[in-house]
Amino acid sequence: MPDEPAPTPRGSYAKGVARRQEILDRAIEVFARRGSDRTSLRAIAEEVGVTHAALRHYFGSLEELLVAVYRESETRGGADDHDDPEATPVELMRDWTESNREVQGLVQLYSTLVATALEEGHPAAREFATERFARTRADLAERVRRNQRAGRIRPDVDPLAVAALVIAASDGLQTQWLLDPDAPQDAALALLEVLLSAPGDA
Amino acid sequence: MPDEPAPTPRGSYAKGVARRQEILDRAIEVFARRGSDRTSLRAIAEEVGVTHAALRHYFGSLEELLVAVYRESETRGGADDHDDPEATPVELMRDWTESNREVQGLVQLYSTLVATALEEGHPAAREFATERFARTRADLAERVRRNQRAGRIRPDVDPLAVAALVIAASDGLQTQWLLDPDAPQDAALALLEVLLSAPGDA
Repeated sequence: MPDEPAPTPRGSYAKGVARRQEILDRAIEVFARRGSDRTSLRAIAEEVGVTHAALRHYFGSLEELLVAVYRESETRGGADDHDDPEATPVELMRDWTESNREVQGLVQLYSTLVATALEEGHPAAREFATERFARTRADLAERVRRNQRAGRIRPDVDPLAVAALVIAASDGLQTQWLLDPDAPQDAALALLEVLLSAPGDA
Repeated sequence: MPDEPAPTPRGSYAKGVARRQEILDRAIEVFARRGSDRTSLRAIAEEVGVTHAALRHYFGSLEELLVAVYRESETRGGADDHDDPEATPVELMRDWTESNREVQGLVQLYSTLVATALEEGHPAAREFATERFARTRADLAERVRRNQRAGRIRPDVDPLAVAALVIAASDGLQTQWLLDPDAPQDAALALLEVLLSAPGDA
């Protein structure tokens, strides 16, 4: 029956995609405003304005919704495509930190996702966090190599160790700062930048 | 009625303290074995072998039980009283990391507590994490000053910024390592130690 159009399945699929996107958009607004407090999916569904059944249908679990919200927010924020390929890893993290200060809900969401990933029984969060750390380490290590060739970062440091260290410092300092605005987040990142800089470039 | 003994209230108070301790001991065993998956207090109560009502009576909330378990474990582990006052902050963190590898449940508990502290509406976790970070920063900054006087750490770095950086690096690297044993945790901590060392001491 090649001539028979199939409007219902196709239309219903397209409608499903649109509906999923609509829920995701509203969930992002909710999380950006109030952060994720890991209350029940039901409470989030209520605030997003959909039924619990619909949320479960489109996302499966709270964990999968959290991952979808974070991925979508990150894509929109353009966190992955920093303009200047010559920027150091620490400069990149400082930009990221700056933009994060505007959306504390998403920072909370990030820390919630990472903590969830460390617990047993949360494969979606674990896959998200593990993959994200591995990819960010590889990207930053490549950036370190570029910076080493350009004479901006010490030539005697291992690029992958630097990448892991910068990510860890950035994540950890952000946590300390969120809990206590007097924590020396900027000073500590600036210190790391100086420590890593090639002699004569600091 | 000064002559009248009051055995019931005193006895019942002492019994209450003992009972609380007994629950705490069992909760520590449970958390050390399986970590905190932030399931309900009810599930934890079941595994600890007390009623939900008793847990709530002695600890108030899941969050307060988590804090009590972590504090007690830390006291037992002696994390705060490192023998060598001349050890560098990074050496201290490496010891801590080593001992943490034996008790992954407590590491999970730590990350859960910190993530909980960042969310709204969890005053006990927030107070615990904020106070712990501030105290650890102050202790490590003092250690940095001692190391600077002894010529082991560069004299030109701000002790408090170093302290915040070392804590952040330690926490963040531990997270990356828990998710992926190939993450260069040891290499990155060793790198930080070298970067911070005074010229000639590395």
